[in-house]
Amino acid sequence: MTLPLLQDLRKIFKNDTGRVFIYPSSGTGAWEAAISNTLNLGDRVLMSRFGQFSHLWVDMAKRLGLDVVSVDVEWGQGVPLDAYQQDLQRDPSIKAVFATHNETATGVSSDIAGVRRAMNAAASDALLFVDGVSSIASIDFQQEGWGVDLAVTGSQKGLMMPAGLSMLGVSAKALDAAKSATMERCYFDFADMIATNNAGYFPYTPPVQLLHGLRASLDLLFEESLPHVFARHRRLAEGVRRGVQALGLDLYAVAPEWYSDTVSAIRVPDGIDGAEVCRIGFERYRTPFGAGLSQVAGKVFRIGHLGDLNEVMCLSALASAEMSLADAGAKIDLGAGTAAAQDYYRRALSPTNPEPQPV
Amino acid sequence: MTLPLLQDLRKIFKNDTGRVFIYPSSGTGAWEAAISNTLNLGDRVLMSRFGQFSHLWVDMAKRLGLDVVSVDVEWGQGVPLDAYQQDLQRDPSIKAVFATHNETATGVSSDIAGVRRAMNAAASDALLFVDGVSSIASIDFQQEGWGVDLAVTGSQKGLMMPAGLSMLGVSAKALDAAKSATMERCYFDFADMIATNNAGYFPYTPPVQLLHGLRASLDLLFEESLPHVFARHRRLAEGVRRGVQALGLDLYAVAPEWYSDTVSAIRVPDGIDGAEVCRIGFERYRTPFGAGLSQVAGKVFRIGHLGDLNEVMCLSALASAEMSLADAGAKIDLGAGTAAAQDYYRRALSPTNPEPQPV
Amino acid sequence: MTLPLLQDLRKIFKNDTGRVFIYPSSGTGAWEAAISNTLNLGDRVLMSRFGQFSHLWVDMAKRLGLDVVSVDVEWGQGVPLDAYQQDLQRDPSIKAVFATHNETATGVSSDIAGVRRAMNAAASDALLFVDGVSSIASIDFQQEGWGVDLAVTGSQKGLMMPAGLSMLGVSAKALDAAKSATMERCYFDFADMIATNNAGYFPYTPPVQLLHGLRASLDLLFEESLPHVFARHRRLAEGVRRGVQALGLDLYAVAPEWYSDTVSAIRVPDGIDGAEVCRIGFERYRTPFGAGLSQVAGKVFRIGHLGDLNEVMCLSALASAEMSLADAGAKIDLGAGTAAAQDYYRRALSPTNPEPQPV
Amino acid sequence: MTLPLLQDLRKIFKNDTGRVFIYPSSGTGAWEAAISNTLNLGDRVLMSRFGQFSHLWVDMAKRLGLDVVSVDVEWGQGVPLDAYQQDLQRDPSIKAVFATHNETATGVSSDIAGVRRAMNAAASDALLFVDGVSSIASIDFQQEGWGVDLAVTGSQKGLMMPAGLSMLGVSAKALDAAKSATMERCYFDFADMIATNNAGYFPYTPPVQLLHGLRASLDLLFEESLPHVFARHRRLAEGVRRGVQALGLDLYAVAPEWYSDTVSAIRVPDGIDGAEVCRIGFERYRTPFGAGLSQVAGKVFRIGHLGDLNEVMCLSALASAEMSLADAGAKIDLGAGTAAAQDYYRRALSPTNPEPQPV
Repeated sequence: MTLPLLQDLRKIFKNDTGRVFIYPSSGTGAWEAAISNTLNLGDRVLMSRFGQFSHLWVDMAKRLGLDVVSVDVEWGQGVPLDAYQQDLQRDPSIKAVFATHNETATGVSSDIAGVRRAMNAAASDALLFVDGVSSIASIDFQQEGWGVDLAVTGSQKGLMMPAGLSMLGVSAKALDAAKSATMERCYFDFADMIATNNAGYFPYTPPVQLLHGLRASLDLLFEESLPHVFARHRRLAEGVRRGVQALGLDLYAVAPEWYSDTVSAIRVPDGIDGAEVCRIGFERYRTPFGAGLSQVAGKVFRIGHLGDLNEVMCLSALASAEMSLADAGAKIDLGAGTAAAQDYYRRALSPTNPEPQPV
Repeated sequence: MTLPLLQDLRKIFKNDTGRVFIYPSSGTGAWEAAISNTLNLGDRVLMSRFGQFSHLWVDMAKRLGLDVVSVDVEWGQGVPLDAYQQDLQRDPSIKAVFATHNETATGVSSDIAGVRRAMNAAASDALLFVDGVSSIASIDFQQEGWGVDLAVTGSQKGLMMPAGLSMLGVSAKALDAAKSATMERCYFDFADMIATNNAGYFPYTPPVQLLHGLRASLDLLFEESLPHVFARHRRLAEGVRRGVQALGLDLYAVAPEWYSDTVSAIRVPDGIDGAEVCRIGFERYRTPFGAGLSQVAGKVFRIGHLGDLNEVMCLSALASAEMSLADAGAKIDLGAGTAAAQDYYRRALSPTNPEPQPV
Repeated sequence: MTLPLLQDLRKIFKNDTGRVFIYPSSGTGAWEAAISNTLNLGDRVLMSRFGQFSHLWVDMAKRLGLDVVSVDVEWGQGVPLDAYQQDLQRDPSIKAVFATHNETATGVSSDIAGVRRAMNAAASDALLFVDGVSSIASIDFQQEGWGVDLAVTGSQKGLMMPAGLSMLGVSAKALDAAKSATMERCYFDFADMIATNNAGYFPYTPPVQLLHGLRASLDLLFEESLPHVFARHRRLAEGVRRGVQALGLDLYAVAPEWYSDTVSAIRVPDGIDGAEVCRIGFERYRTPFGAGLSQVAGKVFRIGHLGDLNEVMCLSALASAEMSLADAGAKIDLGAGTAAAQDYYRRALSPTNPEPQPV
Repeated sequence: MTLPLLQDLRKIFKNDTGRVFIYPSSGTGAWEAAISNTLNLGDRVLMSRFGQFSHLWVDMAKRLGLDVVSVDVEWGQGVPLDAYQQDLQRDPSIKAVFATHNETATGVSSDIAGVRRAMNAAASDALLFVDGVSSIASIDFQQEGWGVDLAVTGSQKGLMMPAGLSMLGVSAKALDAAKSATMERCYFDFADMIATNNAGYFPYTPPVQLLHGLRASLDLLFEESLPHVFARHRRLAEGVRRGVQALGLDLYAVAPEWYSDTVSAIRVPDGIDGAEVCRIGFERYRTPFGAGLSQVAGKVFRIGHLGDLNEVMCLSALASAEMSLADAGAKIDLGAGTAAAQDYYRRALSPTNPEPQPV
């Protein structure tokens, strides 16, 4: 079972020449695996912060002993390509570049191909680390096409499983780097994984039930086909955005280039408490909206739209959001957001329309 | 496990002095059990037809050899109390009166207490048979309060389980009748059930997995409490009805006294094919609306709103119905139905409102 | 899903030209379906009793109004072929012949092909009814090869599922008989089944979860292949029999020709209470032996050996039986039965032995 | 849910004044968590190796940068108390003492209370680390009574769950040590766990399905009661040992003081290949014996006897072992081991015997 799983995971990462490792851990564990296997204490790395999850990765990198050059970006935007390019040109000692593909806290997607172009423009030979926890298997991801060296994801997002597994796509270059990297590591060590994976097993007792779940998940994704999975996420997200706009609300993402197809963070109107919106949604309408985290606490609520999801489910989230906002004191034209999304979904799914194109 | 299950089922039926039997069968099996255990070939029985399911029960009664006086009622109405009273007064030989509590095909609920009053007014000592498949555990049902002698339900509706079990509430009077009833019967025989149930088991191998499911179902119902379960169904249904009205559509039920709290059958506008609405709903929007059956084929589509269900799920059904209707060619103000239901649900769930009262 | 299921079930029954119906009921329901669809009140039928289950079928036939000629056979034997042939020759009015393929209460298998030969010898054109609840899918069964007209089975034996479904294989001749049979019937009516099955559905809500289970069960059986499934049951049973013999105990089946490959009923030694053996087995050793029923109550205990079972599981049953018998007061050479079975299983599974042949 | 889980886990560890952390990881992860949170690079630690798992822990400690004093013990014995005491007296710089409570590879249990006594005798204030993966919740374990500072276990052994969670019991002293320990760590960091656990959640997405499983597991253990759970494991193991002895075989554990109540490693006779025994057991008899690992490869096979297990299951393992050994060429008196275990189990479970006492 193990070898075909690992082989098929590489199709998800679009990683032909490297490896994908499966860890019994949360995605955070794969963040650590990526760092501890390929970098050394004191290595200078370029990171950016624009949300709770990119913030936590910076925090981890510092605690693991890296010399972090952290670019603080206004929340609502993503990875700053120009700043990255300049930093890389200015400082050739940078050993690794980190990018959060999809910042779950703010609903912001970044341009990973652009990060690679910036690195190339700066002639950087740093390793490229990408957090794809809330993007991989939902939004197009091309580990090899974009030159990603370390790509992290988890079981509980686009792979539609319970939490408990993380997956780490590793390029051939990163595998090489691991051979000489000197951080102490054992649980997450690539070498142990490689030696045992080659024989079809794992360095310690794996959670077999989750591996069976992963098999089922991959089969579902391949049956729908990745281009259709990506197009569906794009369509679901666009409907939610139309609904938000029709309600006169704003996404936290400041411009369309940053809009995420897997999660929308919506600014609550002035004077309204986003935490109260979430509380009402959960307790009164049984809808678990994502709360605003850290510096956006109370300012946003979030609708996740990824995984095993369809248009009608997104409409129910919008309808619930309208009621929750209204109950929390916002002036809301009930049904207006839902109607805008319905209108979009109808046209997008119309059989007379061409097949929605993957992005 | 068996004895507490049977004891607790009596709380669901509100049957203190009779028995409840559990059959491994669909609800249709319990229809047959009720007849074959208490009536005799050629017995005159009073029934009424106003939808596919009441129609099928009449068909069964005839095929099992009863002399059926069948009152045909315009679909959209329910059990005709006056006609029943007159028939009973005119013909004292009637041995049994049948009433479909909730006609699933047309979304019509009937007044079972009223049937009992009509019987009493006519001084009838007939047995009262009630089909409660889509009412019991969702809509108030009082086997003893209403003098119901045979009450049928199934596992897959208000009891929130997979199909495979039917339950039959039997009054003391019906148990007596069974002692002298002469129809051939064996699988559904009360006497075998009584003899084995008394000892805590069944006359043949029971589907134990479904009995465990029934245990869980009863625990959930008692935890929420039956009055709250009934109030929730009333509330969910009322929201759907407000939505239907706001769309300018009509229920198939012709007057509020017939409105069902578990299923709404909605007339499609002239020129629109209800079957096409259902097809689009299922294929395009992943929503399994109920199709029109028999004489309402193509004329209605149905939204079921019973069981483990909440307000937001009903909103998603309305939103999907709006899109499906529009795609099928109806002039629909997208979001209008959803908005009306949202408005109702908000007020009904407002913490400043009094607790919704059970009906 | 329905049509392939029904098609594949016919491979299990080896029924190419008739039909197989699936009922939401226990096997008892399919007994009744077979009778009520093909026979008429007062029809003379030939049956035999040699255990609790054949006894119950006779009881049902009488209660459903048949004129039963019942041959009482000493328990421990099975269907009496000579007596059947003589009765059929003597009485050409016999409309149906009933045979219990595997009597679960006594561990006795009967020769169904022999019943057909006896019928042919007597030039009988009666219908042949077979109870295959504890044989079909475990012991070779050939509905067409043996001229069986009505073949009953259930989900919870050889099909390895929970209880809740019965299956009835019906020959073309029996389908014809059903067209003119006049017993009142509805729930089990063939005509309703045929009309709906042809369109891929059922006359009432089916237990879909069990149909999915049946799909999985059939896939497992075909993967192992029926000849291997039968050979495995023969082997498992033979090991148990060797163990019983080595303990100095007797099967209740009086001669090898009656030995069942799916259940062994074992006589307890004089002075030992079989019910106590079962109680100890269950409470002390967590082993659910079958108790002696009716006239063998206290005289036997039973080991079922069918379904998803292997050699080591049979050994554990023997080991538990040894302890339970000893605790109940029997003189038992602990391990002797287990050892004899081990010896047999080793040789039967030895790779140097030829593949065990299906019987 | 989280706080009661953590509280109840402390009853399993018998840890009243410290904490228990739950990690989404295999047990190996908790090994690393224990080290990286409380020790510093270059710290001298005392360990012992007498099997594959104690070997791997030593390997981890070295790779994480500890200065390991490793006592190599002949496999078949356990933690060498005298050697530990002498080493501790000789070298007061030892910061931590490691002990594998139950070495799964050899079926050896060590005396953890004795390790604590040796430390006290040497006036050592080192931290005591214990690997309790295959002991905790099956064999008596007293984190506080024995002065254990770091106690590791996993979900898939005595807790009867799928793999995927590790649990780490931490003493107050170890929590103090963590405050000043300087190894880089993040995923396994105590401080993050403490901060979030105090609020009832986790530092990253937890595998909620496994937490529900843990709840069920703890409820089962408390219902049986820990003393009875320990007595049952002792009884099951003793039966297996009697069986092994009756077959003329030896445990790999060299003396009764080392016998494990959760796993028995059995020496195969001279000239027999233990790997072949395991292969035959798995392929022919569907029994997954544990293979000999590393220096006992081919020399032993192992029977695990922990978790949700009873006497009859142990008998089936013995019976299968007898056949597998015989097929692999060993001279085996089939049934002899089973009989000896049966004899022991009968007496141990006899109602006239006093309740088996926990050890």
